[in-house]
Amino acid sequence: MTTAQDGINGSLAVVGLGPGAVDLMAPRARAALETAEVVVGYRTYLDLVRDCLNPASVVLSSSMMQEIDRCRAALEMAGQGRRVALVCGGDPGIYAMAGLVFELARTTDAAVPIDVIPGIAALNSCAAVLGAPLMHDFAAISLSDLMTPWDLIERRLEAVAPVDFVVVIYNPKSKKRTDQIVRAREIMLAHRSPDTPVGIVSGATRAHETVRLTTLARMLDEDIGMQTTVIVGNSQTFVWRGKMVTPRGYDRKYGL
Amino acid sequence: MTTAQDGINGSLAVVGLGPGAVDLMAPRARAALETAEVVVGYRTYLDLVRDCLNPASVVLSSSMMQEIDRCRAALEMAGQGRRVALVCGGDPGIYAMAGLVFELARTTDAAVPIDVIPGIAALNSCAAVLGAPLMHDFAAISLSDLMTPWDLIERRLEAVAPVDFVVVIYNPKSKKRTDQIVRAREIMLAHRSPDTPVGIVSGATRAHETVRLTTLARMLDEDIGMQTTVIVGNSQTFVWRGKMVTPRGYDRKYGL
Repeated sequence: MTTAQDGINGSLAVVGLGPGAVDLMAPRARAALETAEVVVGYRTYLDLVRDCLNPASVVLSSSMMQEIDRCRAALEMAGQGRRVALVCGGDPGIYAMAGLVFELARTTDAAVPIDVIPGIAALNSCAAVLGAPLMHDFAAISLSDLMTPWDLIERRLEAVAPVDFVVVIYNPKSKKRTDQIVRAREIMLAHRSPDTPVGIVSGATRAHETVRLTTLARMLDEDIGMQTTVIVGNSQTFVWRGKMVTPRGYDRKYGL
Repeated sequence: MTTAQDGINGSLAVVGLGPGAVDLMAPRARAALETAEVVVGYRTYLDLVRDCLNPASVVLSSSMMQEIDRCRAALEMAGQGRRVALVCGGDPGIYAMAGLVFELARTTDAAVPIDVIPGIAALNSCAAVLGAPLMHDFAAISLSDLMTPWDLIERRLEAVAPVDFVVVIYNPKSKKRTDQIVRAREIMLAHRSPDTPVGIVSGATRAHETVRLTTLARMLDEDIGMQTTVIVGNSQTFVWRGKMVTPRGYDRKYGL
């Protein structure tokens, strides 16, 4: 019981599962799940990796809106000397749980070692299924104004639109939050051609994956929801044989 | 020889190796390397995965500045009916080869299937070793003006600095190109506190990994080179127990 009480041997791995396909999860993530004494996570993500878990480990699953409780429980168990894995979809460091874990640990100045195991994030996997839209400078922006003032989100959209960043939009829309994607499109359209390619991806690399290629003009005709990632191309982005591609500049420099 | 001539069975997988640690490469990437008849890549990346390659496969390695030749060779071999893997460090879709492959394929309207296997990019792995600096909206900007006019790069820096994006800087400096990072810092400093945390990472997850935490004021005292990624925090980013963390906004919304 000594180790459990002083927490010396406890540790917390914040584990990125990647986009969902099991063969896109890093072996380091799998090893962390297999060796954890306690696995904590949102139910849907745990279901994806049920086969990787050690039958002897304690599994704490929770519903989606309980991120704070989930992270706190993971830190507490680690502080009691357990080897804990907290699972996140995608990459823990991109719009996921890694930051919240450190924020909570700071409030108690927790000494337990915290390790972030990176994963293939939605922006990586969505880009891959679309082709290669992120080959030049890009900005990632969440349209969720739950924790960020909408004014700041809008100013960020206004900032990146005129200087030709590719834009990756996270959390474009939910049942209650439907205006933001309309406004985001307006801002982009004020600076870019209506023909600018737009890629819309849900469930990348999973069984229910949908990949749609459209344009700034027509993007709102598509079904967009909570789990959707929207990638707006820059002025050079093209579509060829169903792939969305942003050139890096080789053609201008060297000719192809 | 029919399949080789008509190219029906050829395919090209553009494979992301991840940051370098073998246990951060996705199983799908490993499988593509193991089953490829031809593996094409930059020598340094091939050395990282030598153990994964099928001894029977043809390996075409090249030096760094030959990207166009490398991609063209991979497409040609695939067009001749071979199963080809083109290896990239990190994620093929982020400042790597996926875009160039599609650009070249378009010039001949090549019909060969091209599949991008995403990987953990430098931005994901550098963020993980630093802590959680990318937890809020961020922009990725390459300072290389080889194929992008410096004026546009500078305008992008000017656009993102005042609206509090975390900024991930790729290609900050090379032997011949030393001024850009100086100018980038000046632009950030015009809008952010000199105490803003800055993370500087080289060789993330490899044996020679170096991780340094500094500030906008002092960042130029650090060694920065071709293989370095620089992450500049936003106004909320903090450092706690050697970790660089950007809060998402839970504290303001819910209290922690």
